[in-house]
Amino acid sequence: MPTMSGHTTAIRASKVIGTEVKSPDGNSIGKIEDVVLDKTSNEIMFAIVGFGGFLGMNEKYHPMPWSMLDYEKDRDGYVVNTTKEQLEKAPADTMDELTKNDGHGLREQVYDYYGAPRYWQ
Amino acid sequence: MPTMSGHTTAIRASKVIGTEVKSPDGNSIGKIEDVVLDKTSNEIMFAIVGFGGFLGMNEKYHPMPWSMLDYEKDRDGYVVNTTKEQLEKAPADTMDELTKNDGHGLREQVYDYYGAPRYWQ
Repeated sequence: MPTMSGHTTAIRASKVIGTEVKSPDGNSIGKIEDVVLDKTSNEIMFAIVGFGGFLGMNEKYHPMPWSMLDYEKDRDGYVVNTTKEQLEKAPADTMDELTKNDGHGLREQVYDYYGAPRYWQ
Repeated sequence: MPTMSGHTTAIRASKVIGTEVKSPDGNSIGKIEDVVLDKTSNEIMFAIVGFGGFLGMNEKYHPMPWSMLDYEKDRDGYVVNTTKEQLEKAPADTMDELTKNDGHGLREQVYDYYGAPRYWQ
């Protein structure tokens, strides 16, 4: 449902989950599978992008910095400034592995890999 | 699925949504309906707690500070330190109204109402 206002700062997590993720050239990379939150702060730790299962049983999920995901209304999805090659070498694992620890080490690894500025101290 | 580690800092938004919310005396208040995220920062703006529809067609949803929600494993839900009376007078609205603006004004209102410390400047 379109809103009349230009304010789009707030977004419901349930609306984020399932939204398509695309590269700048318009190719679909996958979709947002989940968003990982920090229970002990007010921080979004990272988003998890899934590749839609075409990798088979051992589907890998990619944690990505929230700040990398720019929603583009015209394209009806999040556009990330990355290449297929960069993604292929990016941190990825099963969902269980990605979420079984406290997330801090993984967050560091992910933000550093993509060169996204750290928002934590 | 129980984890072997004691690290529970990271939590998937999809697991948060639908979890029951209880008062300290164990009564059910409702459940987490959604979590509102800030697109322009790495911040969780607030959670939205629903009352399960028993209020009828005009069901109201309560935005609540994320920091107020303490997950208690033994009780299988979030416990918030609030009273029924406090909740009855708390900021509440339809989901559309709660999420149609940029969220900043509502966030201030909600955090101040519950006396939760502001995490933003």
